[in-house]
Amino acid sequence: MKKWLLTAAIAASFTAQADEGMWQPHQLPAMADMLKQKGLEIDAKSISKLTEFPMNAVISLGGCTASFVSPKGLVVTNHHCAYGSIQYNSTPEKNLLKEGFLAKTYQDELPATPGSRVYVTEAVTDVTSKVKNGQMDKVGNDFYAGIEQQEKALVAECEKDAGYRCQVYSFHGGLEYYLVKQLEIRDVRLTYNPAGSVGKYGGDIDNWMWPRHTGDFSFYRAYVGKDGKPADFHEDNVPYEPKSFLKVSAKGVSDGDFVMVAGYPGRTNRYRTASEVENQFEWAYPQGKILRERMIEIIKDTAPEGSDERIKYESLIAGLANYAKNFTSMIEFYGKSTMLADRQKVERDLAAWINADKTRQAKYGETLAALDKLVAKSQQNQERDILLSYIAYTTMATTARDLYRLANEKNLADMEREPGYQDRDMTNFTSSMERIDRRYAASVDKAVLLDMLSRYAQLPAEQRLPALDKAFNIGKKFDAKQLSKTLDSMYAKTKLGDKATRLAWMDKTVADFKKSNDPFIQFAVNTYDESMTREKEQKQLAGDLMKVRPRFMDAIIAYNRELGKPVYADANSSLRVSVGNVKGYSPQDGLVAVPFTRLEGIVAKDTGVDPFDAPAKQLELIKQKQYGDYYVKSIDSVPVNFLSTLDTTGGNSGSPTLNGRAELVGLLFDGVYESIIGDWGYDDQSNRSIQVDSRYMLWVMDHLDNADNLLAEMDIVK
Amino acid sequence: MKKWLLTAAIAASFTAQADEGMWQPHQLPAMADMLKQKGLEIDAKSISKLTEFPMNAVISLGGCTASFVSPKGLVVTNHHCAYGSIQYNSTPEKNLLKEGFLAKTYQDELPATPGSRVYVTEAVTDVTSKVKNGQMDKVGNDFYAGIEQQEKALVAECEKDAGYRCQVYSFHGGLEYYLVKQLEIRDVRLTYNPAGSVGKYGGDIDNWMWPRHTGDFSFYRAYVGKDGKPADFHEDNVPYEPKSFLKVSAKGVSDGDFVMVAGYPGRTNRYRTASEVENQFEWAYPQGKILRERMIEIIKDTAPEGSDERIKYESLIAGLANYAKNFTSMIEFYGKSTMLADRQKVERDLAAWINADKTRQAKYGETLAALDKLVAKSQQNQERDILLSYIAYTTMATTARDLYRLANEKNLADMEREPGYQDRDMTNFTSSMERIDRRYAASVDKAVLLDMLSRYAQLPAEQRLPALDKAFNIGKKFDAKQLSKTLDSMYAKTKLGDKATRLAWMDKTVADFKKSNDPFIQFAVNTYDESMTREKEQKQLAGDLMKVRPRFMDAIIAYNRELGKPVYADANSSLRVSVGNVKGYSPQDGLVAVPFTRLEGIVAKDTGVDPFDAPAKQLELIKQKQYGDYYVKSIDSVPVNFLSTLDTTGGNSGSPTLNGRAELVGLLFDGVYESIIGDWGYDDQSNRSIQVDSRYMLWVMDHLDNADNLLAEMDIVK
Repeated sequence: MKKWLLTAAIAASFTAQADEGMWQPHQLPAMADMLKQKGLEIDAKSISKLTEFPMNAVISLGGCTASFVSPKGLVVTNHHCAYGSIQYNSTPEKNLLKEGFLAKTYQDELPATPGSRVYVTEAVTDVTSKVKNGQMDKVGNDFYAGIEQQEKALVAECEKDAGYRCQVYSFHGGLEYYLVKQLEIRDVRLTYNPAGSVGKYGGDIDNWMWPRHTGDFSFYRAYVGKDGKPADFHEDNVPYEPKSFLKVSAKGVSDGDFVMVAGYPGRTNRYRTASEVENQFEWAYPQGKILRERMIEIIKDTAPEGSDERIKYESLIAGLANYAKNFTSMIEFYGKSTMLADRQKVERDLAAWINADKTRQAKYGETLAALDKLVAKSQQNQERDILLSYIAYTTMATTARDLYRLANEKNLADMEREPGYQDRDMTNFTSSMERIDRRYAASVDKAVLLDMLSRYAQLPAEQRLPALDKAFNIGKKFDAKQLSKTLDSMYAKTKLGDKATRLAWMDKTVADFKKSNDPFIQFAVNTYDESMTREKEQKQLAGDLMKVRPRFMDAIIAYNRELGKPVYADANSSLRVSVGNVKGYSPQDGLVAVPFTRLEGIVAKDTGVDPFDAPAKQLELIKQKQYGDYYVKSIDSVPVNFLSTLDTTGGNSGSPTLNGRAELVGLLFDGVYESIIGDWGYDDQSNRSIQVDSRYMLWVMDHLDNADNLLAEMDIVK
Repeated sequence: MKKWLLTAAIAASFTAQADEGMWQPHQLPAMADMLKQKGLEIDAKSISKLTEFPMNAVISLGGCTASFVSPKGLVVTNHHCAYGSIQYNSTPEKNLLKEGFLAKTYQDELPATPGSRVYVTEAVTDVTSKVKNGQMDKVGNDFYAGIEQQEKALVAECEKDAGYRCQVYSFHGGLEYYLVKQLEIRDVRLTYNPAGSVGKYGGDIDNWMWPRHTGDFSFYRAYVGKDGKPADFHEDNVPYEPKSFLKVSAKGVSDGDFVMVAGYPGRTNRYRTASEVENQFEWAYPQGKILRERMIEIIKDTAPEGSDERIKYESLIAGLANYAKNFTSMIEFYGKSTMLADRQKVERDLAAWINADKTRQAKYGETLAALDKLVAKSQQNQERDILLSYIAYTTMATTARDLYRLANEKNLADMEREPGYQDRDMTNFTSSMERIDRRYAASVDKAVLLDMLSRYAQLPAEQRLPALDKAFNIGKKFDAKQLSKTLDSMYAKTKLGDKATRLAWMDKTVADFKKSNDPFIQFAVNTYDESMTREKEQKQLAGDLMKVRPRFMDAIIAYNRELGKPVYADANSSLRVSVGNVKGYSPQDGLVAVPFTRLEGIVAKDTGVDPFDAPAKQLELIKQKQYGDYYVKSIDSVPVNFLSTLDTTGGNSGSPTLNGRAELVGLLFDGVYESIIGDWGYDDQSNRSIQVDSRYMLWVMDHLDNADNLLAEMDIVK
């Protein structure tokens, strides 16, 4: 049991303070003075330009961030971001996860896992007026569909440029839209990864925890065709030559130093209303935690340790457990915080500001009430909706639905189709159908579906879905045994467990589906209209929200502009910059987390048992104090990981943490446990990001793994 | 899972260093310069005199330490030391444990739990020559018995002085003997205790842990007859007027300040040989942990949560679990330490010193080898002996044996009897026979005995005890079902579960026992000779050890004298003084435990659920920052608990922690988890004692409990 002190209330957000903020690069020049004062040595304007150093060295891997660190396309990211590629290249004979891997020459490099990409952001264009053009008079579903249509058109236009991937990102809930154009490098190769006992040291036990001693870094190399353009893997391809790359600092940072990070943070909720916060923390997280823990229990009961089924579900269990832990932290720290009261106060202040002026009143007077009304509407059937969202974790029902949806979507022109069912999505779709073989066991799937449906069956009549009820034979009086029998029969009869069958269904027509006897296909067909109706209702609501929330955000931005405070948008997987300092914190009254861990901490943690089983050579090097050039006197060792106040979240993994001269001083890879709730509100006292120190990376490469070729290739600042 | 960094190897002991050392008061004057330099402001000589301030204010409660803090016999000790008395006076209607208790007048005070004592040490006399007189030519059992006889004679002589309790303590394994004469105050009353949610805040979860927020203090008052002499409880008794008492500091201490503690530490093992260390950590602790955890499991299985039986065993479970945790820590930190190698080195150094000189060689040359031989002999049957020691936890077998032993001992003159069976022991003996009613359930007793005997039955023949085998019908081929049946029948037939029956047996003769049909009495009779033989063998060995170990200690002391280092004796429940500083530590690389916790830490830990359920009034006072006179600027709050480098162990509980002027600045109540192994070797980096801060005590009394009468009675230094 861990108990932590929140010395100050979780910040109420709505206005950026201190090191809070995930800034869009174009916002930075306006903050130049503050940045300079904090310690930025290069021109703030240069960070705002995506095609110049250092921002053009910061790249996305899709879900993770990375950066170029050599003129020959060498890419550094987290070990956990390269994990799939390391696993993909491992065999029982040569386990790269266990032993690590180092390509001494280009020829030795290995193809990354299929689908691996390096995205180099080349342009971010404000397309707000284009997206909204002609749409603003629409409401609900029409507005939603109209905006989606405009976005798709912009993307299609942008992607006409071969080798590029484009996407429209919505900011401030739809107040602004930006089109992001990224060079899509398709030939990515694994260059170097330390052994798992370095790169994943501490494993899931240390996940989200401090103190930390993880060497969470690995190297890729980006390849392009001889013409310098993106190309599929080919032996004739050549290393990509980026316009610029980051220098790596061997001097590193000290306690209190300025740091900044550029990356692709996924999602935050800093501007949700008080009623959304209340519902999320007092209903959604507790419910989610219960359902996740229950699902884990069912999977473990059905697929005992050591069984073949269990192996297939380990990754799902890990994912469920990861967020059960996340939700537990959310609930705990919410209970200790004044977040709700703070949000309510901010809303009162905002309302007072609006009401103090007639123009404002006319513009924003009804906004919060309208937003709250829509939010309340979205929560109306949430007991049911959350169960349906967990039913979506089951494979057979979901697969059948996805396949039938595809058959239906294919009746539309490509541009008219739902995202996910367009031609550009088919590679993904196919691999998701293939992947099922490694992640599905009928016994587990049935047990989870039975439990979730049993819960669904307890819902009041007004939340129930008649076609769904009928599909599973759920009557007014729920009979669990009857349902179990129904499912037994469905799982016995379905052929969707077979890969070839699934792939074949991708090419069939709606009529084929309607004729099928497969019970899950029948289920998909019979519930299709009902689920489309539900989807339409949701889009109707989403469309309404997309009209109201931007007004609410507009009010917040205007209010803060008067206070002289810039407002950053919630994270949305687009490129952002955070600034802060190297700094420890007090996790609990009576304890202080100091900002650096040391090599000796690895020896102290080591039990010889995974995940605390550092390589023998490493333990020996440490015992012999072989610090080399990376020794830091103040800690009498080599720093391993360090803490910073940087405002980050999932998706920032692998981001280069930079000093004031934009030299790489670390790789961001995690946040501390107390930071989890930070997605809803940044707190100066407890929000801390965890970085692997560049000096530890270099020490491992130099002393442990002899990666001389890479050290020679990089520009290392001593 | 907790992992801690031992930044330095556990000290190898044998020579005191830095803050290591539990000194006999008479040793202190020789260390006066060092003490002054460290921060002692009063004369070192004064601490060496037991009948002068401050040492005559430090008292023993038997198992705990305490001190006088007013001219009217007011005694302060730990809440956990007064726990029995608080529980004793609690009723369902008035639960003093839950609500706390404050006597506003003498008349309101409540009698402490029967048997409560205040021992005021009045004289410590070196009786080495008296004890050894005429014994030194004896060996083995004769030597053991001879020494015991001399001790008993000295005690008897000393206790002729009515109102005194005397005891001979052996130091350095029998190198020296001291007779301790203590005034035995028999009328002890409960004066004040905070609510359990203050005094036991954090409960078993926080036990041995830092950060800590426990208000572990309570007050007794010592009463004597009108003549000033110890007397049994009587309403005409008057408060005892101690020769001196401690002033209580409202200013407290700061980080780095000098502190010292006087108290009665129970037992340490700082001078055990390498082979003893190895056996203890690599065999005895792991075995003990297994047996304790198994016993807990059996008790819990047999007496389910909520059952009447379970209530009777809660205290045993807690005790077993407490030391299972202790052993776990021992094993963990031993694994991380170089303790064994360090001891081996110390022994090599000592051997080299001995061999460098012919006189030394003649005197000590054979000592270590002789000691190791005896130690090996003592371990010969340890698989059996440890099982017998856990069988001794069962009630029926042990009770029958104790009663039959008493009948046998009574055939001897009082002075000839085994300690524990003399007339002076009969009060204790009787209450132990009475107490069984509240701590015994046949079902549990049988289940534990069955498990331990089943393990015993697997032992090789040479370790087995024929009479014991026969008593439980254990044949060559072990039959568990048969044993279970035998025990069923024994428990069904025995009458020892009845209190009156047990007490009646106290007055019966050996012949009465031999005639009895009670199966456990029969067991005691039938195994008596065998167990006496075993006891005699053990005493033989103990006698031999009592001759060899002092020589080993003599060598160590002589060796250290040459190095200019004083040597302290292992703790033996006699009065000792430790000196040190207020100081934090690093429990783990990347974390620092700061020396003070704050009131706000209570609010942060509070869940509203025991043991984290501080009184609502307290939480409110803290939220309103009602710090009163006890505010400390450097921590911006009132300090709650603090860490020091003081060298202490179990038995030191309740000890007054004093500043350089011998003012009470805290009460020692625990050590940190990393200190548990400290009983075997003090480590500068991680040995820390935990004190409740005097300012927190005063704040609770002043602001929370309105104990104005006591605050007025004490001499508080502002």
